[in-house]
Amino acid sequence: MAGNSFGQALRITTAGESHGPANVVILDGVPPGLELSEDDLLPDLARRRPGQSKIVTQRQEPDRPRILSGVFEGKTTGTSIAILIENVDQRSRDYSDIAEKYRPGHADFTFDAKYGFRDYRGGGRSSARETGVRVAAGAVAKKLLAEEGVRVLGWVCQVGDLVAEIDDPSAVTLEQVEATPVRCPDRAVAERMIERIEAVRAERDSIGGVAEIVASGVPAGWGEPVFDKLKADFGKALFSLPAVLGVEYGAGFGVATARGSENNDPFVLDDGSITTRGNRHGGILGGISTGLPIVLRCAVKPTSSIPQAQPTVTRTGEETTISTKGRHDPCLLPRFVPMAEAMVAIVLADHMLRQRATRGGPR
Amino acid sequence: MAGNSFGQALRITTAGESHGPANVVILDGVPPGLELSEDDLLPDLARRRPGQSKIVTQRQEPDRPRILSGVFEGKTTGTSIAILIENVDQRSRDYSDIAEKYRPGHADFTFDAKYGFRDYRGGGRSSARETGVRVAAGAVAKKLLAEEGVRVLGWVCQVGDLVAEIDDPSAVTLEQVEATPVRCPDRAVAERMIERIEAVRAERDSIGGVAEIVASGVPAGWGEPVFDKLKADFGKALFSLPAVLGVEYGAGFGVATARGSENNDPFVLDDGSITTRGNRHGGILGGISTGLPIVLRCAVKPTSSIPQAQPTVTRTGEETTISTKGRHDPCLLPRFVPMAEAMVAIVLADHMLRQRATRGGPR
Amino acid sequence: MAGNSFGQALRITTAGESHGPANVVILDGVPPGLELSEDDLLPDLARRRPGQSKIVTQRQEPDRPRILSGVFEGKTTGTSIAILIENVDQRSRDYSDIAEKYRPGHADFTFDAKYGFRDYRGGGRSSARETGVRVAAGAVAKKLLAEEGVRVLGWVCQVGDLVAEIDDPSAVTLEQVEATPVRCPDRAVAERMIERIEAVRAERDSIGGVAEIVASGVPAGWGEPVFDKLKADFGKALFSLPAVLGVEYGAGFGVATARGSENNDPFVLDDGSITTRGNRHGGILGGISTGLPIVLRCAVKPTSSIPQAQPTVTRTGEETTISTKGRHDPCLLPRFVPMAEAMVAIVLADHMLRQRATRGGPR
Amino acid sequence: MAGNSFGQALRITTAGESHGPANVVILDGVPPGLELSEDDLLPDLARRRPGQSKIVTQRQEPDRPRILSGVFEGKTTGTSIAILIENVDQRSRDYSDIAEKYRPGHADFTFDAKYGFRDYRGGGRSSARETGVRVAAGAVAKKLLAEEGVRVLGWVCQVGDLVAEIDDPSAVTLEQVEATPVRCPDRAVAERMIERIEAVRAERDSIGGVAEIVASGVPAGWGEPVFDKLKADFGKALFSLPAVLGVEYGAGFGVATARGSENNDPFVLDDGSITTRGNRHGGILGGISTGLPIVLRCAVKPTSSIPQAQPTVTRTGEETTISTKGRHDPCLLPRFVPMAEAMVAIVLADHMLRQRATRGGPR
Repeated sequence: MAGNSFGQALRITTAGESHGPANVVILDGVPPGLELSEDDLLPDLARRRPGQSKIVTQRQEPDRPRILSGVFEGKTTGTSIAILIENVDQRSRDYSDIAEKYRPGHADFTFDAKYGFRDYRGGGRSSARETGVRVAAGAVAKKLLAEEGVRVLGWVCQVGDLVAEIDDPSAVTLEQVEATPVRCPDRAVAERMIERIEAVRAERDSIGGVAEIVASGVPAGWGEPVFDKLKADFGKALFSLPAVLGVEYGAGFGVATARGSENNDPFVLDDGSITTRGNRHGGILGGISTGLPIVLRCAVKPTSSIPQAQPTVTRTGEETTISTKGRHDPCLLPRFVPMAEAMVAIVLADHMLRQRATRGGPR
Repeated sequence: MAGNSFGQALRITTAGESHGPANVVILDGVPPGLELSEDDLLPDLARRRPGQSKIVTQRQEPDRPRILSGVFEGKTTGTSIAILIENVDQRSRDYSDIAEKYRPGHADFTFDAKYGFRDYRGGGRSSARETGVRVAAGAVAKKLLAEEGVRVLGWVCQVGDLVAEIDDPSAVTLEQVEATPVRCPDRAVAERMIERIEAVRAERDSIGGVAEIVASGVPAGWGEPVFDKLKADFGKALFSLPAVLGVEYGAGFGVATARGSENNDPFVLDDGSITTRGNRHGGILGGISTGLPIVLRCAVKPTSSIPQAQPTVTRTGEETTISTKGRHDPCLLPRFVPMAEAMVAIVLADHMLRQRATRGGPR
Repeated sequence: MAGNSFGQALRITTAGESHGPANVVILDGVPPGLELSEDDLLPDLARRRPGQSKIVTQRQEPDRPRILSGVFEGKTTGTSIAILIENVDQRSRDYSDIAEKYRPGHADFTFDAKYGFRDYRGGGRSSARETGVRVAAGAVAKKLLAEEGVRVLGWVCQVGDLVAEIDDPSAVTLEQVEATPVRCPDRAVAERMIERIEAVRAERDSIGGVAEIVASGVPAGWGEPVFDKLKADFGKALFSLPAVLGVEYGAGFGVATARGSENNDPFVLDDGSITTRGNRHGGILGGISTGLPIVLRCAVKPTSSIPQAQPTVTRTGEETTISTKGRHDPCLLPRFVPMAEAMVAIVLADHMLRQRATRGGPR
Repeated sequence: MAGNSFGQALRITTAGESHGPANVVILDGVPPGLELSEDDLLPDLARRRPGQSKIVTQRQEPDRPRILSGVFEGKTTGTSIAILIENVDQRSRDYSDIAEKYRPGHADFTFDAKYGFRDYRGGGRSSARETGVRVAAGAVAKKLLAEEGVRVLGWVCQVGDLVAEIDDPSAVTLEQVEATPVRCPDRAVAERMIERIEAVRAERDSIGGVAEIVASGVPAGWGEPVFDKLKADFGKALFSLPAVLGVEYGAGFGVATARGSENNDPFVLDDGSITTRGNRHGGILGGISTGLPIVLRCAVKPTSSIPQAQPTVTRTGEETTISTKGRHDPCLLPRFVPMAEAMVAIVLADHMLRQRATRGGPR
């Protein structure tokens, strides 16, 4: 049943497999008048792209986006925007291993269980290849948000047991994030993360971590009560990304050991405006934005594809081993950052438009 | 903009405020022929109800559900099912404090920011009162799932720094959970949790914790690729509950420090069937069920309403203090369990029906 | 699968059977600050109510609506609004005939085919009883529209071969419509329609007709391209009403015999504003409002329930006859008018809010 | 706000403008295992294509579809299917006329009113060019339906005052329809229609008509009560097509002059099965299929673009005239047939899958 769409007022719908002809996203609901060109999509696509640094997979995917509709004379028209990314690296491969053996940690087995068979080429629809068009859509959402002063930025805050120290998440800059290929703004920890990732790769293994995403400038009042709470839509958005096994915001799992008297951020006046002292609530109360920075974190598992042999079974139920060929990321986190930013931006742009329907507003 | 519905093939839509006349849920998509009566809803409503034990709020809400439609001669008809719960405890109160002062940790401020004003009586739509009808809807979903051999059960696994030890989550029974008012199946830890909660209440404070929910018997193949992954819909469902700041499944945030070689659950044969050794993947791969137990955990914050005075501001921007009157839970966890079970059951029943649309099947 | 909701930005969800305990509607998306009370719902409910005049069914259904949520101190809060109408006339009846025999023109057979059985009491969910809560929801939509200067009004323009003559549909007043129980503003034709309906009833038969609905004051620019064209949503809304077999707008089926040179309404200037000469386009071009009155017509079949014996079969496949007992409308049209107005108003209010999401605006 | 999607269990989402780079559709919800190739899409695209005969527009658009995803080794995989049609005939044109002057009967004015500006090249998103990908999607839906024995076929039944005589709509064959370029299976009337269309073109004018679409083999039980009635979804689907001003099914507007005693189709036994004598109900009762042929008709206006000069105004409010250049259809009906078939097929395939979610079933 239909499940390839996300969002309400701003809705994205995607299609495409890892080694099929192309991936495509349709953005529906982008208001008219936004300046937009293919160049606007390139920076985030470059951050997601394989081969961008020595600590990510060395596959080459140029990821040239092509806007097929919804833009006229450099501006969005209000009609649906289709963005196409052709899969150029489609050389003929030997898929016999992956066709017959279930890769541990992958969706090969569950796709077969669900559909009866699967497009096994490179993981088909279950491959992270599908996130390319999400990142392109996220770039459009970021432009929409920028018009209202909202900025979305993410980074790697943990790789294995290496944890970055970041005093003020809302003060981190894109430059700090992009200063190292691991996308951790704590420079000292970043160097150790890179070493760790290289060591893990040398061991023919992979490693997990945590990414943090912050949205600054969101005015109070976005989000809906009950089911479409901001935190609920962020939860869905981030868990929809491959390899995410945990999502938290604000104090997150830390609330388990907290007392109410310390966990409640008191309301205070700041220059005549109502705000809170502290941000354990992560910018969201009752599912609606408070005006403070929105702070989210995702736990990302170690890459399932590893070069060492792992026990598994075949489709027909015989025990065997598999050692994943090809070029895989020893750590997903650096390339995960733009994907998570994209999903956060799409959720926020959706709720920005929804709030206009509720109370009117700009444009 | 419309945001009070959840689900696709099985969709629930709710309405109601804390101190308004009633709460109501419409369930849309329940197949015909399911035996259903109001009595089926009572057990879970009793588990959610205030006043059920000494460690929860002492408010009295009888929560008598009334099925208004969709059931004929004891069976669902396939048409929409409305369930009504009247709010009987609507005595006239003095709301002047809550009307003017923003309660820390609550949605008072954000509702005002969003809508311009709010129904301040008992928190209005932002009160956890709205979860009563969710639990009623969840009881219907559980009955649907039971027909296919699926069971959803939750419990409290952490209060403050007290952590239960549970060897096999899928072996926990409802009786073990209900054996103590704190709903922790580890009896020894449960006793200490109860003491801790009573101590916290005596200190006029509150405390957080973690709940675990397990779905057993889910066949492989439920869930959709990309956006409507099972984990994404669970994420949305659980984050839509009040007070949840974190959600994880399987190894959860533990994946951050794991290596791929240890995190991948190898596929193995068990009596001729394909399964995995270990369940760090929490019963979900690629967003689709593997047939193993689905294991989820939620971090729940300490109750925001505490009897001690907290600094805050008024609507009109004056600094003041507020000490919440009324009868509140010193720890939300025991009553949270049936709410979380309900949302998990609703997600699973939705995907059960979606899989029928994809590949046909029972009934 | 879920199908009891209608609309996007403003969404209604309904439940209830003819002879069950109650019918309920949840309106989701109504903006905050609209003055609303149960009294606002009464006028249109009175126009839909059985027993209102000698030419409609003489059943008595008081249709007292009860607002359960979403209104505080006389104003909508922005949260979901539930409206309940209890079915008071639920006396025990002998349903053996209707339980076993398929009433011609009714949904008895198709409900059995779809669900395997049905709630046969008074038609269950297929009864026009469900339109009561639609009319209540429509009254809320009309209030929303009135704030932007939009008025929705309908009337009976044809009964059998009696056709009203109405020079300017946008000049018809509610008083003219309500001047006669047949709701036809052409007074002379109205009298003949009433005679015709009484004659048909005396013959133990029923008769069909056409209703016209006009929306005035809709600004240019509401509606979406492609699938959610205004005309498409009106089509869905009006065909969702019982007994409707045809819908047209503007010149309608008359376009079949027209030439382009006569069918195109030329754009002209009127006091500096762009409008058209003529309104064969019915206020809609490309699915989007032009600012001219929106003019719609529905063909409504003669009541299927007639007192004379009709051949049919039983559930178990035996030929028999049925003569519908009870009190039925000899002509559905007079009571159809408020139902159609309600659906037109709901569509317009939905698109009013959608246009705010697209381009911002009032409130 | 998002409005470029249609359907629930089977959902299509489209993008593309008349003279932009390409049009694209994503089909979401097609079950796995359906044999599908680009060749399957060609026959219906050829029936929709400009330049196919002397009585349609002489524009040349090859309409080569490219399946980008969702098909593997000749079969659908269950994941989303993207189909791309490049716009090859994108030569640089002089759009100054259409950019400044509002074409009567077109959406130029309403797009400007809605969005503030528009892509004026060839009508942009409001052009019937967007129906190409609908027809491609409809071809997929037809294949799905064929597996369950359902056939959808349409034809032209009226051009101007020329009306075809068709005794048994469910007996008409594709060959009969395609025997003449006007797609009217009544051969004698077809010849006169062709003459009429040629005469109209010679007069530099256009002419309207009516198309009829029949779905045979639909089992009883498809469709939902209340809002998602089959007739409601057909209404939305057909009114979403350009140029449609009226839709009716079964006896249609003819019910207005009918008595209940003649309009009710009595239930009878046919070889032990329950059916009806007569099909004034058009295969639908209570919004749910009865098993009889579903019979629908659409009124299609005369082409708005005509070569003769028509009065209009400019964007800036000056009176002028416009005579549409380019190659336009003197009568839309022949090319309308495959578009209407496509939308009917998409609605039926959607409800086929929805019924599986309700009661299980094949595959």
